[in-house]
Amino acid sequence: MEKKGSKKQHLGQVIPGPTNPMVTPMLTDQYQFTMAYVYWKAGKHQERAVFDLYFRKNPFGGEYTVFAGLEECVRFISNYKLSEEDIDYIKKNLSVSCEDGFLDYLRGIDCSDVEVYAIPEGSVVFPKVPLMRVEGPIAVVQLLETPFVNLINFASLVSTNAARHRFVAGKSKTLLEFGLRRAQGPDGGVSASKYCYIGGFDATSNVAAGRLFGIPLRGTHSHAFVSSYMSLNDIKNKSLRKKNSSSKCEDFVGLVQKWLKKIQLSKSLRGIFAETNQSELAAFTSYALAFPENFLALVDTYDVMRSGIPNFCAVALALNDLRYKAVGIRLDSGDLAYLSCEVRKCFCSIEKEFGVSGFGKMCITASNDLNEETLDALNKQGHEVDAYGIGTNVVTCYTQAALGVVFKLVEINNQPRIKLSEDFSKVTIPCKKRIYRLYGKEGYPLVDIMTGDNEPSPKEGEKILCRHPFQESKRAFVVPQRVEELLRCYCSGQSDKKGETLPPLKDIRERCIKQLEQMRRDHMRILNPTPYKVSVSGKLYDFIHFLWLNEAPVGELR
Amino acid sequence: MEKKGSKKQHLGQVIPGPTNPMVTPMLTDQYQFTMAYVYWKAGKHQERAVFDLYFRKNPFGGEYTVFAGLEECVRFISNYKLSEEDIDYIKKNLSVSCEDGFLDYLRGIDCSDVEVYAIPEGSVVFPKVPLMRVEGPIAVVQLLETPFVNLINFASLVSTNAARHRFVAGKSKTLLEFGLRRAQGPDGGVSASKYCYIGGFDATSNVAAGRLFGIPLRGTHSHAFVSSYMSLNDIKNKSLRKKNSSSKCEDFVGLVQKWLKKIQLSKSLRGIFAETNQSELAAFTSYALAFPENFLALVDTYDVMRSGIPNFCAVALALNDLRYKAVGIRLDSGDLAYLSCEVRKCFCSIEKEFGVSGFGKMCITASNDLNEETLDALNKQGHEVDAYGIGTNVVTCYTQAALGVVFKLVEINNQPRIKLSEDFSKVTIPCKKRIYRLYGKEGYPLVDIMTGDNEPSPKEGEKILCRHPFQESKRAFVVPQRVEELLRCYCSGQSDKKGETLPPLKDIRERCIKQLEQMRRDHMRILNPTPYKVSVSGKLYDFIHFLWLNEAPVGELR
Repeated sequence: MEKKGSKKQHLGQVIPGPTNPMVTPMLTDQYQFTMAYVYWKAGKHQERAVFDLYFRKNPFGGEYTVFAGLEECVRFISNYKLSEEDIDYIKKNLSVSCEDGFLDYLRGIDCSDVEVYAIPEGSVVFPKVPLMRVEGPIAVVQLLETPFVNLINFASLVSTNAARHRFVAGKSKTLLEFGLRRAQGPDGGVSASKYCYIGGFDATSNVAAGRLFGIPLRGTHSHAFVSSYMSLNDIKNKSLRKKNSSSKCEDFVGLVQKWLKKIQLSKSLRGIFAETNQSELAAFTSYALAFPENFLALVDTYDVMRSGIPNFCAVALALNDLRYKAVGIRLDSGDLAYLSCEVRKCFCSIEKEFGVSGFGKMCITASNDLNEETLDALNKQGHEVDAYGIGTNVVTCYTQAALGVVFKLVEINNQPRIKLSEDFSKVTIPCKKRIYRLYGKEGYPLVDIMTGDNEPSPKEGEKILCRHPFQESKRAFVVPQRVEELLRCYCSGQSDKKGETLPPLKDIRERCIKQLEQMRRDHMRILNPTPYKVSVSGKLYDFIHFLWLNEAPVGELR
Repeated sequence: MEKKGSKKQHLGQVIPGPTNPMVTPMLTDQYQFTMAYVYWKAGKHQERAVFDLYFRKNPFGGEYTVFAGLEECVRFISNYKLSEEDIDYIKKNLSVSCEDGFLDYLRGIDCSDVEVYAIPEGSVVFPKVPLMRVEGPIAVVQLLETPFVNLINFASLVSTNAARHRFVAGKSKTLLEFGLRRAQGPDGGVSASKYCYIGGFDATSNVAAGRLFGIPLRGTHSHAFVSSYMSLNDIKNKSLRKKNSSSKCEDFVGLVQKWLKKIQLSKSLRGIFAETNQSELAAFTSYALAFPENFLALVDTYDVMRSGIPNFCAVALALNDLRYKAVGIRLDSGDLAYLSCEVRKCFCSIEKEFGVSGFGKMCITASNDLNEETLDALNKQGHEVDAYGIGTNVVTCYTQAALGVVFKLVEINNQPRIKLSEDFSKVTIPCKKRIYRLYGKEGYPLVDIMTGDNEPSPKEGEKILCRHPFQESKRAFVVPQRVEELLRCYCSGQSDKKGETLPPLKDIRERCIKQLEQMRRDHMRILNPTPYKVSVSGKLYDFIHFLWLNEAPVGELR
């Protein structure tokens, strides 16, 4: 067979390197190199191995997971190459004086003989089902284990977390990811921005992520900005041009002050407002002078209802005089449900009293340690929040900081392999497999089924037996209305298969959103969701249990 | 004053860029650029601001934190420069057509006018105390907020987590960090390796981190390695040279088989062992042939006591015949306390029965989802583990995935600033401050005290009043036996101060270990530790409360 480079297989698509330049062949565990050396010494390094990458349990107490991180894996292996410095370091750190032949072998590794099959990125996936099947020379595929698992674990965890936040928030709300500062390191932040977007967030505060991935950016100002102003005297240039006009208001500050007085004296709001904080008023005014078209203020530096809101309204009404529409406010502390309702009431009163159409509908953004639970509580209590800024909880996956993705040998030299364990759930499913998703009449996915690679595929309208891989009594006949084969070829190695092209981020995001919508609601709910069924064919079931008995040592009762 | 570049101030030390090339000026929140534009429009951008970086609560339910991440911050600002592509992107993303003067201003920013004072990296630190004080033009220092907080948050969290694991494991155990695959992204893994080492770990499995930071590497083989062998027939080259000799054993495989039979027939162990797994035996033998000086085997792929241990012992005894000493075993599942004791017994019996000196003392490594709690449980139960491999829990900080480091404005144009909050604990401590650690007679630190920048420093042997910053009744006189000023200058900006040089990683690690040992034990214990006291001077106390009253709006009871 003619040798083909991995890049060629992607229809001429040139695959760039991983987003983070730190993702190199050295980003792996020492034991992968140790094992490579043993395989090489034993002459086993070229043996063809098949590994499955999968997880055992859905995160966050849920019953689904979003698969993400595939593109980074493909980029990684498409550009795999150990440098001379890498090889020197490996040589120095193997605890033997290793032979030069091994170093030459390492020099030659480029992953062009590795095949990668995977479920498309952004798909909804389930435990035990291989998300990726990686085939190639055993020594090479082992070297890929650590980076692949690293790249998939966090990506899938964050996408799932984002999807769960979206589910609770509802489709109509805007979800902003604000987590960079609390993320686990620089690309903990950058990759969280990317994978939150895939999971259904709308925008990020992270400039690096915005640029790298084309995610919309959001951000206005902080508390420090507010307290950096002392008084209105800080504002030197007070003039502001009227929107779409050459006429100018020479004293915008005066206009703001006039409005503040009006508000304070207004009948409908009388008594709500005491004297407002002048630093805050200056900060808001200054912000509006710089961004008259995009005035959005953080209103809780001193006191939301006594200071932040009247100051905001004064500036917004002054802007309105010049034909600018303020965007809204952000709340970052306190009782968000209560405050958002109070703020909405106030905006509506002002709309009515001063005849400013649209004022009541201004955007209320809430932030401050939001998570699934607080979003759910807000919904139950009733609130007027339009947009959520979510940081720590979504980017660090605070309620569950890791997903247990593993990478297991299932076949070598066409011999199926099994890993046993005293812990039942850790037994691996042997054999090179195919995976199908079977859909029911209503269009919902019913069950995923794994079969041996050479079994005939399930057919639409034809009855098929689906068995639980380990529990004898759990089995069911299914007549699928639609059959979807899940694993697709992303790197074709030296085979003749045509590799999938890598879709743009927005397509991955759309796939994710669409697949989530397609799921039966009982799999998605927060409280006691129904597990989605994952099964094996009857033939695969029999083989697993044959192999299991074969490998397990026979004990002795004493 | 003569302008000095930040690099010059470091005694000619050239400061390299951040470890992760993704740490650029773009790794910040969009609102930092938005605010910079407002400041610039208002002519406020050059106003001299002072920000404190601190956290409010120790992580993991403990009463101490290890400060880490400083070097990366210094590297970052010492090489700060926006590229033309950066500036184009910022321009495109500000929601106004921003003026060219602002873009020129951005072009000129190089942080040479920023001063950074910090507690040395690796120090034990406490809530509310500034870990860093950053002074400079407000627009510039705001741009640094997000990257600084990002770089300190996770670094300090992981170092603290590692230190806590070390505390529970005890000084005599070896701690190995095995977390790369479960880490939050590539440099979640790499930085976790670094900061675990600072916190007291001994080695890592992460090759990239080993190379970048000079951390010792560890790693042998995986379960897949074991199951990749079918039988002893897989081994082609069976010869092994005797240690330090030219003589060779031509059939090492035969020697292993001979020993396996001896063990199975041995009186003292009779009945423990059934037939062992032949894949496993082949894998161990193959490993020993490649690494005769460093044979360490993972013994739980099939069954620890029935297969893994007898197979290991057979190979280890065969190696012993050739004068090689096996290193030991790793357990990765099951009841680690029980299994480690059984394994130790078995090793000791073999030492005795076959007269192999040192066999009983071989290293037992345990892994599998270890954390503080399981280490503590192992200690209570009694075990024979010598080394722990810890992954997920230490690198993702699973029990608390984020530290709440914040960055707050405390002074602008020499005017102290305060941020109020309905949440008491979120009120900031205003003023540019100095921090001292006061030590008592026994050499323990007693209390940290913050004073205004111009107050006289506390003196050894002189009584000083230490007040709780917010609670009136909490105050105490202290007569320090030693006074240590905590904040040191790391970037001197345009001042004449001499900046500290950045210490090598091992010095940071030593500082950390030494400081932890110096703490009073009751601050360190796992259950109900005593809080360490953090205070302010009488003068600073009065000033905080004066400013507070001044800024808070006066309400109206209705």
